[in-house]
Amino acid sequence: MVERIDLHKHLRLHLVTDSALCGARGIEAVVEAAVRGGATCVQLREKALDRRPFVERARALKALLAPLGVPLLINDRVDVALACGADGVHVGQRDMAPEDVRRLMPPGSIVGLSIESAAQMIAAERAPVDYYGLSPVFDTSTKTDAAPPLGLAGVRRIRAMTMRPLVAIGGIGFENAAAVMAAGADGLAVVSLLCKAADPADAARRLRQLMDGTP
Amino acid sequence: MVERIDLHKHLRLHLVTDSALCGARGIEAVVEAAVRGGATCVQLREKALDRRPFVERARALKALLAPLGVPLLINDRVDVALACGADGVHVGQRDMAPEDVRRLMPPGSIVGLSIESAAQMIAAERAPVDYYGLSPVFDTSTKTDAAPPLGLAGVRRIRAMTMRPLVAIGGIGFENAAAVMAAGADGLAVVSLLCKAADPADAARRLRQLMDGTP
Repeated sequence: MVERIDLHKHLRLHLVTDSALCGARGIEAVVEAAVRGGATCVQLREKALDRRPFVERARALKALLAPLGVPLLINDRVDVALACGADGVHVGQRDMAPEDVRRLMPPGSIVGLSIESAAQMIAAERAPVDYYGLSPVFDTSTKTDAAPPLGLAGVRRIRAMTMRPLVAIGGIGFENAAAVMAAGADGLAVVSLLCKAADPADAARRLRQLMDGTP
Repeated sequence: MVERIDLHKHLRLHLVTDSALCGARGIEAVVEAAVRGGATCVQLREKALDRRPFVERARALKALLAPLGVPLLINDRVDVALACGADGVHVGQRDMAPEDVRRLMPPGSIVGLSIESAAQMIAAERAPVDYYGLSPVFDTSTKTDAAPPLGLAGVRRIRAMTMRPLVAIGGIGFENAAAVMAAGADGLAVVSLLCKAADPADAARRLRQLMDGTP
């Protein structure tokens, strides 16, 4: 486990993995480069992989990230998170309920929940969730079952309704990163932008500059 | 949790669920009838269901089975087993490793592993497994990714090589149940035979009579 989680620091730039998009160089090389460039959190998402190699991959990433102080979240599978000692779990609306995830994970773990509308956010406000993944902000090619995009107006609207950290995902790119942050996101999550980048470290660095307003 | 698990008693007749095969009457009605007829163990297998309804269904079955003293096993998902307080987990060769399942589940839980060959059984002998599911014994239509059938000769061969309880699955029917038990199985697991039965209680009763050699 990462010693002490500072949500606002650690949730700033999520790399959500897609092993197919990472290509031949492999997921670990992309993760290492993205973190070097400024990714503050890694969410391992494996929808097609068998559980045994999923656990092995999760352990390899945990070993890579722990010395760097970067939290590892597991998408959906609480048992994989427990097996590899991950720092948290990210679930969607149809995954295990956040109450159950919280109860099964060790104290201090991060529990994230995907929110596709203001109504879902309101329903989740009583649930033991640390941050919301706002999804999708824009059109995205990575997720085929995504809801209609929230747009910047949707981010602003949800921002006005909750104190919880908001991580925006879906169609995030260099051209809109600053606008999404200005609309009230606390962090951004990207799949393609880093997994497909020729130089993931450089892509993460540029994205952080745009998010942070640094030159 | 069922108070005290007696493996030879509780593993005798597994009902492995298939909600589609259970049809409109629903999985709970089939489970209740099968247990009334003589099923000693229920394994909830849900390959297509979202996690949230999976947990809800598991809790409903646990509530149904606990007063009857019948253990509930969950196929593959350790997190669902933990969330619903199941008595154990059954994993396949590509699921989470038995060592990890054992570590995550409470002490005294049942851990079952599918074995498709003598070589897999030998490799598993050092793993913390309570019973082997021998799969498939015969041709089966329920599992599309099944290995070649072991046949009665395969059951006999594996029986001679391990002290662990063996639960045979795959193409088990009234016509071969006694022969599979005679070949050395400690129990049988069935999907179609009970889930598709017009009268699951009667089907379970007939199967138990054939297995137990009672009139």
